[in-house]
Amino acid sequence: MGNVKEKYRFKHKHILGIEQFSAADIFYILDTATSFKEISSRNIKKVPTLRGKTIINFFFEPSTRTRLSFEIAAKRMSADTFNIAASTSSAQKGETLIDTACNLQAMNPDIIIIRHSSSGAPLLLSRYVNAAIINAGDGAHEHPSQALLDMMTVREHKGKIEGLKVAIVGDITHSRVAHSNIVGFTKLGAEVRVAGPATFMPPHIDTLGARLCKNVEDAVRDADVVMALRIQKERQDDPLIPSLREYSQFYGINRSLLRYASPDVLIMHPGPINRGVEMSPDVADGPGSVILEQVTNGVAVRMALLYLVMGTEGSKGE
Amino acid sequence: MGNVKEKYRFKHKHILGIEQFSAADIFYILDTATSFKEISSRNIKKVPTLRGKTIINFFFEPSTRTRLSFEIAAKRMSADTFNIAASTSSAQKGETLIDTACNLQAMNPDIIIIRHSSSGAPLLLSRYVNAAIINAGDGAHEHPSQALLDMMTVREHKGKIEGLKVAIVGDITHSRVAHSNIVGFTKLGAEVRVAGPATFMPPHIDTLGARLCKNVEDAVRDADVVMALRIQKERQDDPLIPSLREYSQFYGINRSLLRYASPDVLIMHPGPINRGVEMSPDVADGPGSVILEQVTNGVAVRMALLYLVMGTEGSKGE
Amino acid sequence: MGNVKEKYRFKHKHILGIEQFSAADIFYILDTATSFKEISSRNIKKVPTLRGKTIINFFFEPSTRTRLSFEIAAKRMSADTFNIAASTSSAQKGETLIDTACNLQAMNPDIIIIRHSSSGAPLLLSRYVNAAIINAGDGAHEHPSQALLDMMTVREHKGKIEGLKVAIVGDITHSRVAHSNIVGFTKLGAEVRVAGPATFMPPHIDTLGARLCKNVEDAVRDADVVMALRIQKERQDDPLIPSLREYSQFYGINRSLLRYASPDVLIMHPGPINRGVEMSPDVADGPGSVILEQVTNGVAVRMALLYLVMGTEGSKGE
Repeated sequence: MGNVKEKYRFKHKHILGIEQFSAADIFYILDTATSFKEISSRNIKKVPTLRGKTIINFFFEPSTRTRLSFEIAAKRMSADTFNIAASTSSAQKGETLIDTACNLQAMNPDIIIIRHSSSGAPLLLSRYVNAAIINAGDGAHEHPSQALLDMMTVREHKGKIEGLKVAIVGDITHSRVAHSNIVGFTKLGAEVRVAGPATFMPPHIDTLGARLCKNVEDAVRDADVVMALRIQKERQDDPLIPSLREYSQFYGINRSLLRYASPDVLIMHPGPINRGVEMSPDVADGPGSVILEQVTNGVAVRMALLYLVMGTEGSKGE
Repeated sequence: MGNVKEKYRFKHKHILGIEQFSAADIFYILDTATSFKEISSRNIKKVPTLRGKTIINFFFEPSTRTRLSFEIAAKRMSADTFNIAASTSSAQKGETLIDTACNLQAMNPDIIIIRHSSSGAPLLLSRYVNAAIINAGDGAHEHPSQALLDMMTVREHKGKIEGLKVAIVGDITHSRVAHSNIVGFTKLGAEVRVAGPATFMPPHIDTLGARLCKNVEDAVRDADVVMALRIQKERQDDPLIPSLREYSQFYGINRSLLRYASPDVLIMHPGPINRGVEMSPDVADGPGSVILEQVTNGVAVRMALLYLVMGTEGSKGE
Repeated sequence: MGNVKEKYRFKHKHILGIEQFSAADIFYILDTATSFKEISSRNIKKVPTLRGKTIINFFFEPSTRTRLSFEIAAKRMSADTFNIAASTSSAQKGETLIDTACNLQAMNPDIIIIRHSSSGAPLLLSRYVNAAIINAGDGAHEHPSQALLDMMTVREHKGKIEGLKVAIVGDITHSRVAHSNIVGFTKLGAEVRVAGPATFMPPHIDTLGARLCKNVEDAVRDADVVMALRIQKERQDDPLIPSLREYSQFYGINRSLLRYASPDVLIMHPGPINRGVEMSPDVADGPGSVILEQVTNGVAVRMALLYLVMGTEGSKGE
């Protein structure tokens, strides 16, 4: 009655990347996730919110944690979940991704969660299906639920995001986690610095709002958050880095490096960790490490995303 | 009171093939499927019909769509579903199929859905277990749920099956889809014609009631339904056909060929499609194509089959 | 009122092996399993006991029957179940087992069921997680749910375990089934004899309470129970045995050998059977064979274990 202020409304049918969100969207997702978090610590971890919804996990790349996190989120909200792994999918039989998507759509799913090695695969799907699409990681493009759980974890500890100094160290070019986090933290007013071997630094990173540091000490200096990216061990023979040992020596996050950071720096990693490569064990397990809290918040964030895309039926676009 | 007409009763405990059904059985299944179809478009896609039932998907061949369709059908009816894939099954450990079946039976499943590369595997199982067996495709023998969803789709569009001209084009010899459809459409009074390379035509196809056409134009002439079968791309080097390109040129379903058909011909395909091989993209996506409706009806047909075999406990035989 | 006898209370948070149990514990588990058995023969096989519980099946080795048995047990008690297979797990990405365990724990599971090729993996997990751990087979160490279902099956038929003569034949050294059964049956007062090729006999087997027989006839003499262990066909070229044919001839359980046993001897096998290797088909399918009852009791035992570990929240240790 007489309320002239327009009420915020989450208007995104699909979750394709952090790019699509305003700061208000991100805060709304984080608030929703925070309100759901407590469900997972109940004795009976089950609410009827998404009962009778059909949610398909469509994973073209192997994943334990992300697939499991989404599946746990979905079942705790009473949805019916279905797993499709690429190795057994029609992709092997020569079907196009669009045809596969249309076929899935014909079975009336409510949400399709997709992980794919090609950037843009979730966007492509969203143009052909009525189901809500959630990007669980596409190529080197975006991994929005990971960035959201990272922002949620930082906010829980720091009480805010704005004004924080966030250092991301590793293979920035090939990391969808880095990309989504740079975009997200920047939108919320943090200062994001990136560092790593020159072969891992994308050109024009500044257009995303991040600052490219010429060495890792610069990136970590006074940082409130230090996030190490995973180095793929398969890259042992990667011509982009001389060796894992050398990478670890120059870019691994260890106690000695952290003396440059803020005393109450948060240590983050998207997992799984290669201990002794991108991060030393004493840092991973030491004070300020919130790596496992990230995983816990992942379930809450995914519950929020599933809930929010289901609450916006009829709305258009991303 | 005074009703002398005997009421129809579905008497099949197992669904092994279309061969086992009378026309009345098929119509009863289609009517049941039609009544279930609406559930999948509800906001809450869930009915309690099969609550507390144990349904095992036992797939010895990879499959996305059929396995998913059965699993969706089962969960929308509140059954508990379990997936076993051959690659992780005891078959690798040298266990016989009969022993595996008896072991599954010992866990008291209500329904076992089986796909197997050997014709007759579902029948074999049905002799050793108390659970209802549903054949999800066995070798080159039968794929009854596929034929039922095809008949359902045709009936929805044409209002009847009797008197229709149905052309099936492709590898008739090795196709369980073709076999089940020939038997089914013939039982319902349709005229079924088949065409394809001579090396793909089984001898004595006429004993099934289908007419072997010497060329594809003859098969398609005045047809109300044209169904293309999938060519396995793995068969690129198959000595049975000179090349995929030549197959496509002579037997691919394209606009030019369809000028021979009825103007309101339905275009069908069991999926997944090899676009440009057995069907041109403009036909797959064009007027008359009901390929995605087939997939939608697949869920409804499978709900009906799960429901019907559960309603006939105590009845004997197939 | 005035009851001075202390009430038995199951105090084990984790199920790591039969070693951890007293005879009273084992009887309590078997009694609980017996009371749950009837649920699996109901028309509606579902009780709400574990609603809202998160149960993860974490299998590093392929398994049909054990994984399925646990999953069926869990769903019949209304738990939410999640399957992780090693081939798709983070283990491939170089993550340590402890890190994987801590990551799973961060998603707040209630129970983690683990099968692993390394002895002690379940114990290791139990030290790092709050969830209850159930060992579904670890290396050549223990397979407690298998031994419990074996003891349940014997008790059902013989009315007791104490005083029975139990012969276990095969590869004792590498068999976790043998180990758990020797420990369990001995604790309940049975006399356990083992036999097999000398290369399959562990040194100091007597410290477990079993008697090493110099030939299989000695082991089977007057036996109330004969249990054959599975010979891995992959071992065809195993230097430990000359050939499968010779193994079968000297150690395979056949009718002729069973003339030495008690007339009402029970025939057992943990499955899957290599017919004609460790057991002749007429014995596997003949009088006294309770092999499929073992499988049925497996579901009941696993329901009991899931139930009991959930009922002891707050208790400490194993």
